[in-house]
Amino acid sequence: MRDVLAAIDADRARHVDELKDLLRIPSVSSDPAHAADVRQAVEAVRVAFERIGITARVCETGGHPLCHAEWMGAPGKPTLLVYGHVDVQPVEPLAEWTTPPFEPVEVNGNLIARGASDDKGQVFTYLKAAEAWLKRTGSLPVNVRFVIEGEEEVGSPNLPAWMMANREAVKADVVAISDTSQFGPGLPSLCTGLRGIASFELEVRTGQTDVHSGTFGGAVPNAIHILARMIDRLHDEEWRIDVPGIYDDVAEPAAFERESWSALPQSEEEFRETSGFLSLLGEPGRTSLERTWARPTLEIVGITGGHQGPGHKGVVPCRAVAKFSTRLVPNMRPARVIEAVRRRIAELTPAGVESNLQFGHGAPPVSIPVDSKWIAAAVRALEAGFGKPPVMIREGGSIPIVTFFVEELGIPCLLLGYGLHDDRIHGPNEKFSLKDFHAGIRTGAALLHELAMI
Amino acid sequence: MRDVLAAIDADRARHVDELKDLLRIPSVSSDPAHAADVRQAVEAVRVAFERIGITARVCETGGHPLCHAEWMGAPGKPTLLVYGHVDVQPVEPLAEWTTPPFEPVEVNGNLIARGASDDKGQVFTYLKAAEAWLKRTGSLPVNVRFVIEGEEEVGSPNLPAWMMANREAVKADVVAISDTSQFGPGLPSLCTGLRGIASFELEVRTGQTDVHSGTFGGAVPNAIHILARMIDRLHDEEWRIDVPGIYDDVAEPAAFERESWSALPQSEEEFRETSGFLSLLGEPGRTSLERTWARPTLEIVGITGGHQGPGHKGVVPCRAVAKFSTRLVPNMRPARVIEAVRRRIAELTPAGVESNLQFGHGAPPVSIPVDSKWIAAAVRALEAGFGKPPVMIREGGSIPIVTFFVEELGIPCLLLGYGLHDDRIHGPNEKFSLKDFHAGIRTGAALLHELAMI
Repeated sequence: MRDVLAAIDADRARHVDELKDLLRIPSVSSDPAHAADVRQAVEAVRVAFERIGITARVCETGGHPLCHAEWMGAPGKPTLLVYGHVDVQPVEPLAEWTTPPFEPVEVNGNLIARGASDDKGQVFTYLKAAEAWLKRTGSLPVNVRFVIEGEEEVGSPNLPAWMMANREAVKADVVAISDTSQFGPGLPSLCTGLRGIASFELEVRTGQTDVHSGTFGGAVPNAIHILARMIDRLHDEEWRIDVPGIYDDVAEPAAFERESWSALPQSEEEFRETSGFLSLLGEPGRTSLERTWARPTLEIVGITGGHQGPGHKGVVPCRAVAKFSTRLVPNMRPARVIEAVRRRIAELTPAGVESNLQFGHGAPPVSIPVDSKWIAAAVRALEAGFGKPPVMIREGGSIPIVTFFVEELGIPCLLLGYGLHDDRIHGPNEKFSLKDFHAGIRTGAALLHELAMI
Repeated sequence: MRDVLAAIDADRARHVDELKDLLRIPSVSSDPAHAADVRQAVEAVRVAFERIGITARVCETGGHPLCHAEWMGAPGKPTLLVYGHVDVQPVEPLAEWTTPPFEPVEVNGNLIARGASDDKGQVFTYLKAAEAWLKRTGSLPVNVRFVIEGEEEVGSPNLPAWMMANREAVKADVVAISDTSQFGPGLPSLCTGLRGIASFELEVRTGQTDVHSGTFGGAVPNAIHILARMIDRLHDEEWRIDVPGIYDDVAEPAAFERESWSALPQSEEEFRETSGFLSLLGEPGRTSLERTWARPTLEIVGITGGHQGPGHKGVVPCRAVAKFSTRLVPNMRPARVIEAVRRRIAELTPAGVESNLQFGHGAPPVSIPVDSKWIAAAVRALEAGFGKPPVMIREGGSIPIVTFFVEELGIPCLLLGYGLHDDRIHGPNEKFSLKDFHAGIRTGAALLHELAMI
């Protein structure tokens, strides 16, 4: 492997030049005018695979195509599936770019272009890693499959169906995805958990139409008062969720994880600054990282009722609606959470009032056991790639495709994010650190080696 | 007076015919296309006054004109000011009228036409009452002034200024207004109180922009959670208002009033049915009439925050707004209520959160002392007019022009409503009972007599 890494180090400039070629294709998936460009980017990836000796094909999905590639020459060894995407976000507002978004330039050690970090630059690391192995040794240490799609920025509408219809082509022991960020600069990170979600809409109805607040105010139930009281009682005085049973299945993070989190170089005040909020507030006795990574939430995301226009109106509202979601952590199950919320809403609905709770959508949390062999391999690979061991992190949100891999296909996921939080993905002047691009290629090469050792 | 009442009884058919002439004028004040019709209705009233020997003039107000009339030939006697309006609401949806709205017809003892009850029919009773006195005796028992306006249905935008500029022309000892309803059929009513109001807008802000509920949910204060908790704590567990001091100035209704109210032929269940609400809810130990007539309220009239569109959005809202109003009863003062609400909101605002309370508008409650000589005269007049003593009621809402008479001009008001709750005022097929029209004329005549006896 030492030779392979040395070859990668020697080829730094060429890797950047080849990435630039891919970045020049304006593959904006949300814009029908750029459909041919998305196809061209997928085709460019196919050609890049073929050139290094990996069988690849462009597959139709009903929407933008994807590139499937595979090298299965290591019988008896594990199979790695690499997922990534080569479509990009729109570039507007164009005036805010200091250089044209599809003319990549190097500035202060960064490559500036749309897609540099999200995700062309990150996914390209795996191609160059495989190339280095094939060039040096004529083979790869493990079997590798690739799914590089063209619809991630529009929500991957056709990918799950394509994968379900092509289960053999995506069969693997472990998935690697590099489409997220490091915890901070110089902090290569391994993500071991994502929160799931269950979303709801709650309607409270107390009458047929709003009535005059002079004639009836004080004598009939105001739907907003009722809803506010119900909402308030979904949390206790100290902002714990007050839904009996909701914490029952919550898995405490491993001692190893908590230690790792508390060592992360981010203070509570820095967390607050990042949020732009005036203060921090949450479950007592927990840090902000624990609250967002390892604890469930119940969050009202929208509320509406009564008079919405300017000025004042003398009504007793007969109807009010709140939308809310619970974020789920390992080992919570959406079905149990939905049932617990349903019971609590029924309990909180006063006599003489109607409430109607609609379940929206749900996704289970994702947990990658920190003591798994895959994680151990990834830790060693990141250390080899970046020259230091990774920090263990989680994400507070969901990544639907990860949930799909883990829940539907039953394949554990490794989330090796090489970006940085200030990469301005989706914004003007998107960038990707060339140092991290290089370390990412080294990590990919090391990962193939480490997986072969399992 | 017996002669006068007998003359009124004899002239029933003519009174109805003359009212029909006034109802044929489509004086819709909100529609500029009907401006000439509003003026024609005001002019018709002027002519009607002149014809019976009362000096009258059409006065410009900047908007639609009004008719001012007066007969001041009873020196040493009290002066009565009669207020009413001859403009009407629009007639849409026209298709729902069974007969054309400006072609009055008599059906089952009712006169059907736009404005029959609100307010042409009711205000016309005073003209016919004065006419009967003048015809029989050549004079009126007391001095009488009239202000018959053409802008009530658009909120009387110019009337207060006109009255302030013409204070001599509206100088009086007591005001009589017939623009409301009886408590029920065959229940002539005297209204002795109106609730006042103080309205507010409360904004809660916890951050600069909404943030991702995956990344930050559980660790930063959700503005909707905070607002819901604040709203909930504006009432106690049993729905008393929880704003210290708010009940301090509340005057309990007189024993006489409470007795009168409890004898009114309306059950709690009938009150609920009228509201169209699923149940009744309010301050413990009070009937619905007490709650709406004699107790203050704090009513959220509108709430908004976070995601308002269809579907779900994963955000922690940084801002939420509630509009609310307090209804004031005698002897509460808006300034004290505003101060009490301000203190309570400050107290309920958690550390690390910003709240911004804006005061909207305020109007004091109106109370007509039940033991006043004016009320006593009105009671006797209603008994003479309708053949039975009136019930004593209040209104839960405000009537701004009444507040203006009482608070700005310092003149006590008599609210003698002759309409019925099912008169469909503002709706299709508006009606006015011919029996009540006739009883109203008799009451007007009797009121002139009774006021002269004071």
